[in-house]
Amino acid sequence: MQSLLGNKKKGLLFILSAPAGTGKTTLVRALTHEFSDVIASISYTTRSPRKGEVHGKDYYFVTENEFNQRIGSADFLEHVQLYGNYYGTSKQWVQERLESGQHVFLVIDTQGAMHLRKELEAIFIFILPPSIEVLRQRLLNRATEKLEIIDRRMEQAKTELLLAENYHYQIINDQLAVAYQVLKSVVIAECHRT
Amino acid sequence: MQSLLGNKKKGLLFILSAPAGTGKTTLVRALTHEFSDVIASISYTTRSPRKGEVHGKDYYFVTENEFNQRIGSADFLEHVQLYGNYYGTSKQWVQERLESGQHVFLVIDTQGAMHLRKELEAIFIFILPPSIEVLRQRLLNRATEKLEIIDRRMEQAKTELLLAENYHYQIINDQLAVAYQVLKSVVIAECHRT
Repeated sequence: MQSLLGNKKKGLLFILSAPAGTGKTTLVRALTHEFSDVIASISYTTRSPRKGEVHGKDYYFVTENEFNQRIGSADFLEHVQLYGNYYGTSKQWVQERLESGQHVFLVIDTQGAMHLRKELEAIFIFILPPSIEVLRQRLLNRATEKLEIIDRRMEQAKTELLLAENYHYQIINDQLAVAYQVLKSVVIAECHRT
Repeated sequence: MQSLLGNKKKGLLFILSAPAGTGKTTLVRALTHEFSDVIASISYTTRSPRKGEVHGKDYYFVTENEFNQRIGSADFLEHVQLYGNYYGTSKQWVQERLESGQHVFLVIDTQGAMHLRKELEAIFIFILPPSIEVLRQRLLNRATEKLEIIDRRMEQAKTELLLAENYHYQIINDQLAVAYQVLKSVVIAECHRT
């Protein structure tokens, strides 16, 4: 059976950034569900688990002290502070998965991505909202956060959108099914690049 | 309605090469049928029409004299002699289609493709057979050509396969449906490249 993801021995690393509310979580989840060889990286974070989030599945939830120890041992591929919390990706965790042939999706903010752009071989993908207005509406509909936080996220989003040009691919998420098809195409195509 | 092929104003040029019998014609036809914005370039040739081939649809069938006049006026993006016949692609024809936002597929041999690789911005795709043995069997099954010609095509194929590394993408056509999905993914992905 010929595979859509080709037959490369080593997996590919995909770095995905998107302002909050552009559907990145849904998109990556759909991808990992459809392809057993595609996995999402699990980050370490100092923030508290949201309702339903599981340690070791959604994140590794650690204390600030533990987080700092990992920084000290240079285990992080990247780490960043966002809204007062720390997030970091374990270098070893990612490398082991790539070596085993799995394709890894790293969902990180633009700050972390731009840092990695210079020093890492990876495919950088940016998900955009159809417009800033649509994005605001989506965040309001989600209603999990206070207006004040939504405003902060909107400011963050505007800054992030300016960086989209630095990514290899830009995908607008207007209709989820189309955006997913495009994201999937990027993964399939990259698996066949020389 | 969000389009799978994005919203770039100018079309992309895809250069596709493949040994005879790898299914390139079927693959490109499926693509142009599915996407109205994807078209196959129509070449000029001095060879005789095969049964069912239509002038202005499959090729522009011209005399050797007419072909030489077009070479003289520098109208060809590339032209090549294959099995005693000439094939050429009109520069103007391609440029006009790209400017109008259509994505153009140029199916040419490796010789022509390698020539264009140096001087043209395009996406180069190589279609490979699962193996040389499978390729020979396919050509025998097709049974439209003499054994002597099949042998010549096999020698040609072996030389061409060595050049696959020079293309941006390599797609094995083992199962047609999978190969088509991969080719389609390359087109969709490239339409979203920054």
